[in-house]
Amino acid sequence: MTALSPGALDGAVLVVGCGLIGTSVGLALRTHDVDVALLDALPANVEVAVSRGAGRPLTDRDVPFLVVVAVPPVAVAAVVADALARWPDALVTDVTSVKSGVQRAVDLVPGSDRFAGGHPMAGSERSGPMAASAQLFEGRPWAVTPGPTSRPAALDAVVDLALHVGAVPIIMDSADHDRAVALVSHVPQVMSTLTAARLNDAEGNHLALAGAGLRDTTRIAASDSALWLDILGTNAQDVKAVLELVRDDLDRVIGALGADDAELERVLESGRRGTALIPGKHGSQASSVDVVHVQVADRPGELSRLMTDTGESGVNIEDLRLDHDLGRPVGLAEIAVAVGVGDSLVDALTSRGWTAYR
Amino acid sequence: MTALSPGALDGAVLVVGCGLIGTSVGLALRTHDVDVALLDALPANVEVAVSRGAGRPLTDRDVPFLVVVAVPPVAVAAVVADALARWPDALVTDVTSVKSGVQRAVDLVPGSDRFAGGHPMAGSERSGPMAASAQLFEGRPWAVTPGPTSRPAALDAVVDLALHVGAVPIIMDSADHDRAVALVSHVPQVMSTLTAARLNDAEGNHLALAGAGLRDTTRIAASDSALWLDILGTNAQDVKAVLELVRDDLDRVIGALGADDAELERVLESGRRGTALIPGKHGSQASSVDVVHVQVADRPGELSRLMTDTGESGVNIEDLRLDHDLGRPVGLAEIAVAVGVGDSLVDALTSRGWTAYR
Repeated sequence: MTALSPGALDGAVLVVGCGLIGTSVGLALRTHDVDVALLDALPANVEVAVSRGAGRPLTDRDVPFLVVVAVPPVAVAAVVADALARWPDALVTDVTSVKSGVQRAVDLVPGSDRFAGGHPMAGSERSGPMAASAQLFEGRPWAVTPGPTSRPAALDAVVDLALHVGAVPIIMDSADHDRAVALVSHVPQVMSTLTAARLNDAEGNHLALAGAGLRDTTRIAASDSALWLDILGTNAQDVKAVLELVRDDLDRVIGALGADDAELERVLESGRRGTALIPGKHGSQASSVDVVHVQVADRPGELSRLMTDTGESGVNIEDLRLDHDLGRPVGLAEIAVAVGVGDSLVDALTSRGWTAYR
Repeated sequence: MTALSPGALDGAVLVVGCGLIGTSVGLALRTHDVDVALLDALPANVEVAVSRGAGRPLTDRDVPFLVVVAVPPVAVAAVVADALARWPDALVTDVTSVKSGVQRAVDLVPGSDRFAGGHPMAGSERSGPMAASAQLFEGRPWAVTPGPTSRPAALDAVVDLALHVGAVPIIMDSADHDRAVALVSHVPQVMSTLTAARLNDAEGNHLALAGAGLRDTTRIAASDSALWLDILGTNAQDVKAVLELVRDDLDRVIGALGADDAELERVLESGRRGTALIPGKHGSQASSVDVVHVQVADRPGELSRLMTDTGESGVNIEDLRLDHDLGRPVGLAEIAVAVGVGDSLVDALTSRGWTAYR
């Protein structure tokens, strides 16, 4: 773990908004014995968060060192301004997923130098204090977005908050942040939606040919529309700027199809290069691992048995991926292992009755 | 297993082209004791395929019942025509990934009524006879594409071939097939490429915010450009027709961003509906399972240990997904289990020292 700054979180942390994110912040801070006070427009949410061990209710005598505003996006700027006014020495941050709008609003209020924004890149398909977890942020990026007048102490406090909850703080200004999430999150969401939308045109049994590639590219298109309407609306300009470049490339592809292979190849190669820039294994995996395929019958207990047998094979697993449809009798697990040991895993699984191959 | 037709594969099957697909067909047919003869422009490929047990070399006296043409796309039509001419009673099929062009060429030669096309939706990141496997087609769709004059016997033979190798035959005509793969495979590939291509514009540390959504949507963009240049070129018109509809939607999104939420919502909802049409669990998963998150340290043996402990927990695993980057100290496994038993798995894993939560 990265060392915490000396003097970090020097006093009580007030979490305003006891939903999934706020309550998870409280739970994570309590594992470090930080004094956490809780506030929510709905007293019932505070009660649940307190009962789960996320902190104690705020009292009139509390003077927080840091206020974490974790309320719905539409209310953030006002709650930040209130906090800055009510506690003239407190540092304040938020957890909103688009940063520039909040920052512009906060810039206009007294005490804005005590504010630095934040955005934990973590979530869950569930919401509310009951879904909260002390581990929600573990290993996840936490964007820290100081404003133009933010004091160093405000920035330090948000970095320390991120480190306390196990996240990886990544410092960028709010405009940078919004361009970054347009590129790595909002535009991929739109592209997934556009791909999936075409499936409504499918004729007859055409979708019976669907494979893993379609499933991967359209998975996030199943997300909640209201949530994405809000996110895309708040970051409209940055998303639009990237989508206009996508449209240029799309026009290039449409024009080149069946007409200009060199142009088509340039776009395909540009995509390949792009995947190689994503941090992590992505893009280089095919050449650096052996992939073992294992058939998994679609009946209860099969995956659990495969887990056990794979775990006991003595071969280190680098990655694992499942491709199975309820409509088919057999699914396929792809298990990546170090180059050279794929055959050992095939042998180990075959000897335990699995149909495994490379 | 689906019952095989009476009298199916009534005689020797000749596989022409001993690469990954052809040799895998041979291996799979040999498990049913079908007599398989092998031919390849490179005698060394036949030797390897024979040594792996995929069949025996073709002799001058052989009169095949069915010829499976598994040569590179550019040579398919000529090899099919040769086979139809050389063995006047043989039925002939192929395994090319785009069907209309081959069908049009075959329609012009004598004996085209003995041809019915095929396309197994299976592959591997490796190629050649050494990469072949008798299980390659197990549970996978095998498109069967009869031509306008195909005899019923030709169609039956390809269906039986697919069933023999464990695949799921899906009958459609070649034009239908090409529209289907444009929709479920070729257009998703282009969309993934277009999303990934934009990453080349990323500034500074912007890609540090990348998450699972970006990785899912851009995974297939890392594929071989030469292969896709060939596929997209052969199916240019069908791919272009779908991409033009994508462009219409994209224009709609660009126009609606920050201006027309109702229009934006229509596109988002259209994408959600599209994902629900894909056969299998996709689209309904969030509500029908409990998802358990488990932290996995990025060091050798951790995933294997998690497999063992999960397998031994006694909880049936519905699905499993890994999200880990080498750049971060901790990855996350998402394990889907039946609704109501998520907490049991959390308890089982926690008691074995894992950080697990819902």
